[in-house]
Amino acid sequence: MTVPRRLRLGMVGGGRGAFIGGVHRIAARLDDQYELVAGTLSSDPERARQSAADLQIAPERSYGSFTEMAQREAARSDGIDVVAIVTPNHLHHAAARAFLDVGIHVICDKPMTRTVEEAEDLAAAVPRSKCVFVLTHNYTGYPMVRQAREMVAAGELGAIRVVQVEYPQAWLTTHLEATGQKQAEWRTDPARSGAGGSLGDIGTHAFNLAEFVTGLRCAELAAELSIFVPGRRLDDNAQLLLRFAGGARGALWSSQVAPGNENALRIRVYGERGALEWAQESPNRLVHAPFGQPRRLITRGSEAVGPAAAHATRIPAGHPEGYLEGFAQLYRDAAELIRAREEGRVPDPNTMLLPGVDDGVRGVRFIATAVASSRANAAWTTLAE
Amino acid sequence: MTVPRRLRLGMVGGGRGAFIGGVHRIAARLDDQYELVAGTLSSDPERARQSAADLQIAPERSYGSFTEMAQREAARSDGIDVVAIVTPNHLHHAAARAFLDVGIHVICDKPMTRTVEEAEDLAAAVPRSKCVFVLTHNYTGYPMVRQAREMVAAGELGAIRVVQVEYPQAWLTTHLEATGQKQAEWRTDPARSGAGGSLGDIGTHAFNLAEFVTGLRCAELAAELSIFVPGRRLDDNAQLLLRFAGGARGALWSSQVAPGNENALRIRVYGERGALEWAQESPNRLVHAPFGQPRRLITRGSEAVGPAAAHATRIPAGHPEGYLEGFAQLYRDAAELIRAREEGRVPDPNTMLLPGVDDGVRGVRFIATAVASSRANAAWTTLAE
Amino acid sequence: MTVPRRLRLGMVGGGRGAFIGGVHRIAARLDDQYELVAGTLSSDPERARQSAADLQIAPERSYGSFTEMAQREAARSDGIDVVAIVTPNHLHHAAARAFLDVGIHVICDKPMTRTVEEAEDLAAAVPRSKCVFVLTHNYTGYPMVRQAREMVAAGELGAIRVVQVEYPQAWLTTHLEATGQKQAEWRTDPARSGAGGSLGDIGTHAFNLAEFVTGLRCAELAAELSIFVPGRRLDDNAQLLLRFAGGARGALWSSQVAPGNENALRIRVYGERGALEWAQESPNRLVHAPFGQPRRLITRGSEAVGPAAAHATRIPAGHPEGYLEGFAQLYRDAAELIRAREEGRVPDPNTMLLPGVDDGVRGVRFIATAVASSRANAAWTTLAE
Amino acid sequence: MTVPRRLRLGMVGGGRGAFIGGVHRIAARLDDQYELVAGTLSSDPERARQSAADLQIAPERSYGSFTEMAQREAARSDGIDVVAIVTPNHLHHAAARAFLDVGIHVICDKPMTRTVEEAEDLAAAVPRSKCVFVLTHNYTGYPMVRQAREMVAAGELGAIRVVQVEYPQAWLTTHLEATGQKQAEWRTDPARSGAGGSLGDIGTHAFNLAEFVTGLRCAELAAELSIFVPGRRLDDNAQLLLRFAGGARGALWSSQVAPGNENALRIRVYGERGALEWAQESPNRLVHAPFGQPRRLITRGSEAVGPAAAHATRIPAGHPEGYLEGFAQLYRDAAELIRAREEGRVPDPNTMLLPGVDDGVRGVRFIATAVASSRANAAWTTLAE
Repeated sequence: MTVPRRLRLGMVGGGRGAFIGGVHRIAARLDDQYELVAGTLSSDPERARQSAADLQIAPERSYGSFTEMAQREAARSDGIDVVAIVTPNHLHHAAARAFLDVGIHVICDKPMTRTVEEAEDLAAAVPRSKCVFVLTHNYTGYPMVRQAREMVAAGELGAIRVVQVEYPQAWLTTHLEATGQKQAEWRTDPARSGAGGSLGDIGTHAFNLAEFVTGLRCAELAAELSIFVPGRRLDDNAQLLLRFAGGARGALWSSQVAPGNENALRIRVYGERGALEWAQESPNRLVHAPFGQPRRLITRGSEAVGPAAAHATRIPAGHPEGYLEGFAQLYRDAAELIRAREEGRVPDPNTMLLPGVDDGVRGVRFIATAVASSRANAAWTTLAE
Repeated sequence: MTVPRRLRLGMVGGGRGAFIGGVHRIAARLDDQYELVAGTLSSDPERARQSAADLQIAPERSYGSFTEMAQREAARSDGIDVVAIVTPNHLHHAAARAFLDVGIHVICDKPMTRTVEEAEDLAAAVPRSKCVFVLTHNYTGYPMVRQAREMVAAGELGAIRVVQVEYPQAWLTTHLEATGQKQAEWRTDPARSGAGGSLGDIGTHAFNLAEFVTGLRCAELAAELSIFVPGRRLDDNAQLLLRFAGGARGALWSSQVAPGNENALRIRVYGERGALEWAQESPNRLVHAPFGQPRRLITRGSEAVGPAAAHATRIPAGHPEGYLEGFAQLYRDAAELIRAREEGRVPDPNTMLLPGVDDGVRGVRFIATAVASSRANAAWTTLAE
Repeated sequence: MTVPRRLRLGMVGGGRGAFIGGVHRIAARLDDQYELVAGTLSSDPERARQSAADLQIAPERSYGSFTEMAQREAARSDGIDVVAIVTPNHLHHAAARAFLDVGIHVICDKPMTRTVEEAEDLAAAVPRSKCVFVLTHNYTGYPMVRQAREMVAAGELGAIRVVQVEYPQAWLTTHLEATGQKQAEWRTDPARSGAGGSLGDIGTHAFNLAEFVTGLRCAELAAELSIFVPGRRLDDNAQLLLRFAGGARGALWSSQVAPGNENALRIRVYGERGALEWAQESPNRLVHAPFGQPRRLITRGSEAVGPAAAHATRIPAGHPEGYLEGFAQLYRDAAELIRAREEGRVPDPNTMLLPGVDDGVRGVRFIATAVASSRANAAWTTLAE
Repeated sequence: MTVPRRLRLGMVGGGRGAFIGGVHRIAARLDDQYELVAGTLSSDPERARQSAADLQIAPERSYGSFTEMAQREAARSDGIDVVAIVTPNHLHHAAARAFLDVGIHVICDKPMTRTVEEAEDLAAAVPRSKCVFVLTHNYTGYPMVRQAREMVAAGELGAIRVVQVEYPQAWLTTHLEATGQKQAEWRTDPARSGAGGSLGDIGTHAFNLAEFVTGLRCAELAAELSIFVPGRRLDDNAQLLLRFAGGARGALWSSQVAPGNENALRIRVYGERGALEWAQESPNRLVHAPFGQPRRLITRGSEAVGPAAAHATRIPAGHPEGYLEGFAQLYRDAAELIRAREEGRVPDPNTMLLPGVDDGVRGVRFIATAVASSRANAAWTTLAE
């Protein structure tokens, strides 16, 4: 066995004061498949410079713009293999295009773009580029989420009837964006976030999770978006009804004004023969309720999990893995996907679970469709395939 | 202090093989305020006779019809003070009228009637009769539900923004009514249940709980009713969006095809300053989440509960009370209300929490409105006051 | 089928201000097998009189002493069938003897007596009397406790290796008995409680539960008793190591100075092939962990329970039964045992689970042995059979 | 601010097939303070070579013995700063001495040595070496464990009375070591593990946690060690009573034959004014029960945590951190401690929480004392300071 070299990683966004950039870096490091060597870490040049120094990035590979970075890295013999885009949403599209167009693989945060047009443009650009494009719907990296998907796909629940998915948080219960808090500012700003508030920030995760776990496609939706905090410009609460192709019915709730909830993404799936429940804050557990039998607690790392979950775990049962490990799984799988692409071989089938550009398009359409439905008094609105 | 005599109780329905009748009888007995002395326990004469014997009801007070029972008990000097109506829904109206019209107090199971017309007729009959009418929305008898209501009313959550209420069960996951199971048969039969399936059986409880705890009134709703089990005639799954007067938003889910759920009524209420969560299967606990502070577990019987909950509890904290005790609370409060009525005095203010004929009308309207909305493709439909 | 008449019940203790007497009365009422007709409700004559009136006991059957009560009730043709003894511990023995000696069945609170000598005297008196004697180790009335016993007996865990049982409470964390609180006063008074503090009040329940569920007999123990609250005279914390006949090992902890615990009796049993866990505050659930498989949540009333639990339940799964129902089960089973005795027939085998005078002796010996061990610096001390 | 270079890390043990070595490597990587550059990864030369290649260690820095490694690394200008010792227990002492004696800092797995003599020898060697020595009692790296310690130290519970600590696992329920499973083999082999089985492997963690959180010192103990699996040579279950200096009392249970438990380390601490509870499998939560008030759920990353926990966390509340992050905290703090030592400055006070050689001595003495007590029929035995 030849041990592969670490992939060279660049980053756009994620300088001092950012949140998700640091998460991406830990995720990239955790399984030792990447080394961070270049970045456009901030639109502010001084902050960019300092942030690069913090991260031991060589000064000449700390760039002032992602355009410059894409060009110069593509020209280096030791240029980056892959870039992580971790900026606010409005920059995702242009940055992703810049790297795809020079043949650099992309790992991009979600929601993928601000508009459906941008999303479709990327969807066209990815195959043209022959690059790998991974969207960090990181909750799909949790082993027990993959276990759930695998069990549904194997028919353990029978035909799915009902999906209840929710993602409540508390942190925007007050007018936090008026206090100068940066995370709140951009997430509640339509110019940077797009048309969805809680819907875009977390509702897309919930939506993606529902489709990921069930393998079903939502065909239409009715959305009630609310703004509860005076002065806020984007929804801080969203309640949706979902109709899936094939007849399953769903409800989705995202909220950022729900005290007592930190990051309480939770999905419940009910089928003819049983049910599954998973909650992000206890991610190592999956409840399986076969109809007419006791509930069972399937745990990460135990004998009861199948290959998809086993693939996505590092340490034994009872030693909790968490958010960073789930996020890291996307990076680990992306490394395999990139290497397989470079080597012209078929990748490990587990990497097939990675969210890509199509999931990105779907998420952006989900936001746009929900906003349209809400404006039409929560009328049923078709979600284009 | 004079100890009051036990109230004389009659019962309509609840013979051998019934479920809820037995619950009513235990509830009536628990706090020793009633003695069961008469009944029309079954429409089948032999079963009625045997059931009366089981319950040590004198043979001459076991009646063949509730009409006869009302007439004859009203004529006795030791006739019943109050009747419990525990039949399938379609008989509630006629039975209640029979007793109200002869001046006998009524404790009636929910939903109150099959149709809005019947409900309105009862609403007119009750004040005319000068009788007490209690509807057994029994979940309002739980001390921690009353604690929740009291905390909301006291403003501990600030203005309410979001209400998530759900009531999933598993028991109709298969076509149980086709097997001869009696409970399933009448509950899935429009002639006996009315227009709602899961909606009428349990959705009304969820709806009532949402209004009871928040003190808000639902102004309009959008309902998606589904029948998942082939051959079934009434909804077995209902997902609703709710708009409350004053701007709060809600979602309600009732289901009888949700494996892993036994009787999982649960409510979560989110306000400007905090949240409350309560689940029927752990009824002695109420979670209070003041915004920005740790979640607190308020327990029945503890120093942290207020007078409404203290009124509705019997034994110390940590000694779980359950479903029967919550149900019994309605009977205990009804006894006080009846005695106060008879004695011409103001009752204990805690009895003001008892669900009555107006709640019954509201529940029946809720069902009718949801059915209408669902038929109109889940269009927003006004819920008449 | 002839419906049996209600058993006539008397009560010793349980007047105004008492706790457990009220619990016994609800328990006796719940399943409608008893009517309370006589009592010596208090040693204070005025309180006894008022308490009798509260309970609608005829004045002539409210007695000044249990001795008088036993004599006079035995002489009546409609005299009580059975007496409930719910006084502080120091009166149990004399009261029980008084009724047994005139042929009246006894239901007695625990611990059975203050001393081993008294306990052994009762053990001799019971068979001589031909009466039924039931000791209210009420936690054995919970259906899921009986389910646990049944599963262990059926070998589902294989040979038992380890038993961890605990019963922490918070209520004596401060010097409550110095404030005049009656419950605290007598429980911390050696003259009324006997040699055990937390050990006698709750440790005996834990010990009884361990033997009840496992079917094992504790052969020797090492006990560390502590008094943490200055001025207290009996242990408020007890930690014990247990050796069971056959080689299983156990640990027992009882405490009344453990903040955050209300009535947190909990048992965990580990065998060669699996484990069981049960907690009194969530009594409707039993966790079964077969070795190498997912944990299963067995719920009261579900398809997964066996006949012993089914016998001890009233309402469907998901409708929580609690402390009062568990307590009532002892009364219901006692009624069957008494009737079978009176009728000279073999009782329902489920009544074989009722704790009786031998369990009472064992509990008192447990206390005495633990006190002796503690005085010998927690030396291993044999628990006599 | 100058960004410090990464520390150069070597590893002894942890080759292919090992468990804890991989954990150490992820922990070292997570916060980007180390680069792994040298190793003696296996006593088998071929496995050592392959393992080094897997980890991209240069072949010339893959050594055949830790002695050679210590000498040669000490001689290099770019030699390792610190070594991680992750072998079975019997090699810890010699390996640690080899590196300390050449002035290389040591991070060592627990229990520190097989014997008290070896432990004391290391305790003498560490100050002489002027090196940092960190013992990976990794559970002290969890933020909520540090929060607990901080709260106890701040007097929020008042004087501590009772400590209940337990660490049950299931994995040795059968005779796993007879099947060739490597982890089971060495852990049940006295020659490699030392005198403690479950006691050494996990009981030491429980003991360390009890002293870490409470700040109390155990003065004497009574230990009941058992071997339940026929053919096993070391305890697989240990139940202990503990007496702490100052009067607090404790119980400790470790077991590897407890089905249903994966890695269920849990501690509960009770004081005059309140209690704390923490469980390793839900590590982001700490229950605080102030006496007489509702239980509170303090969560990692929330406003309710103090500086010690805040120091040890990376991502916001609700985004679970787990075992690897807790482990990584020791590496992060060790890096600070090493740099401060090298730079001759006072380290961040949070690094004062790191377990060191004294904790190692204490752990080894704990094992020896418990074994001695058990051999003396669980007699109280003094634990030397």
